[in-house]
Amino acid sequence: MSVDFNALAQQFCNFYYDQFDKDRSQLGNLYRDHSMMTFESTQLQGSRNIVEKLVSLPFRKVAHRISTLDAQPASENGDVLVMVTGELLVDEEQNAQRYSQCFHLIPESGSYFVLNDIFRLNYG
Amino acid sequence: MSVDFNALAQQFCNFYYDQFDKDRSQLGNLYRDHSMMTFESTQLQGSRNIVEKLVSLPFRKVAHRISTLDAQPASENGDVLVMVTGELLVDEEQNAQRYSQCFHLIPESGSYFVLNDIFRLNYG
Repeated sequence: MSVDFNALAQQFCNFYYDQFDKDRSQLGNLYRDHSMMTFESTQLQGSRNIVEKLVSLPFRKVAHRISTLDAQPASENGDVLVMVTGELLVDEEQNAQRYSQCFHLIPESGSYFVLNDIFRLNYG
Repeated sequence: MSVDFNALAQQFCNFYYDQFDKDRSQLGNLYRDHSMMTFESTQLQGSRNIVEKLVSLPFRKVAHRISTLDAQPASENGDVLVMVTGELLVDEEQNAQRYSQCFHLIPESGSYFVLNDIFRLNYG
């Protein structure tokens, strides 16, 4: 299976952060029951738990900005590994927080879901 | 296959950075011909090219320090995904540089090799 993994990763991340910033309660479709997320050392499994965690984060408004995005094929089946570094701004804060995030994307029926998701704020 | 992926990831990263800091020309055994590395947007494939790149980096002394390390199982075959954030100090520099790195580890004959490796310095 040949896939332009760089374009796919860029497209996925644009969609992901756009949806996150607009309404993060709608991200559940991107995860499956066996998907895993580690959010600042909290380990979660399954679409429902992951979205519950994201929705519970203590901010109303959030805006992600990607600084770097790197992608690689992660198997012969079309899996794609993405690492993002970026900044996010919450609510009325003036100072952006830097973060790193890693996604492992799995092809399914012409689209992709997130099998692995690791998120960390980068403290200065 | 059951594996303590957190312990495995920690052990791998300790070994990797220890070897990197002592003599990075010896890291080739951890990669295979189809392994990929993205180093600050340069895409490399294969153990030889990866080690050549690492050896060519313009510093003599380097010391990595892990700040956060998160791991997840990345398949049913024992693959492990690791994301590290950390700091590194080169030569006689007084200020550490922050970095993010992602490893996709594949089990092989009782050990692991690196299929995917993505490295980025985090500029402030």
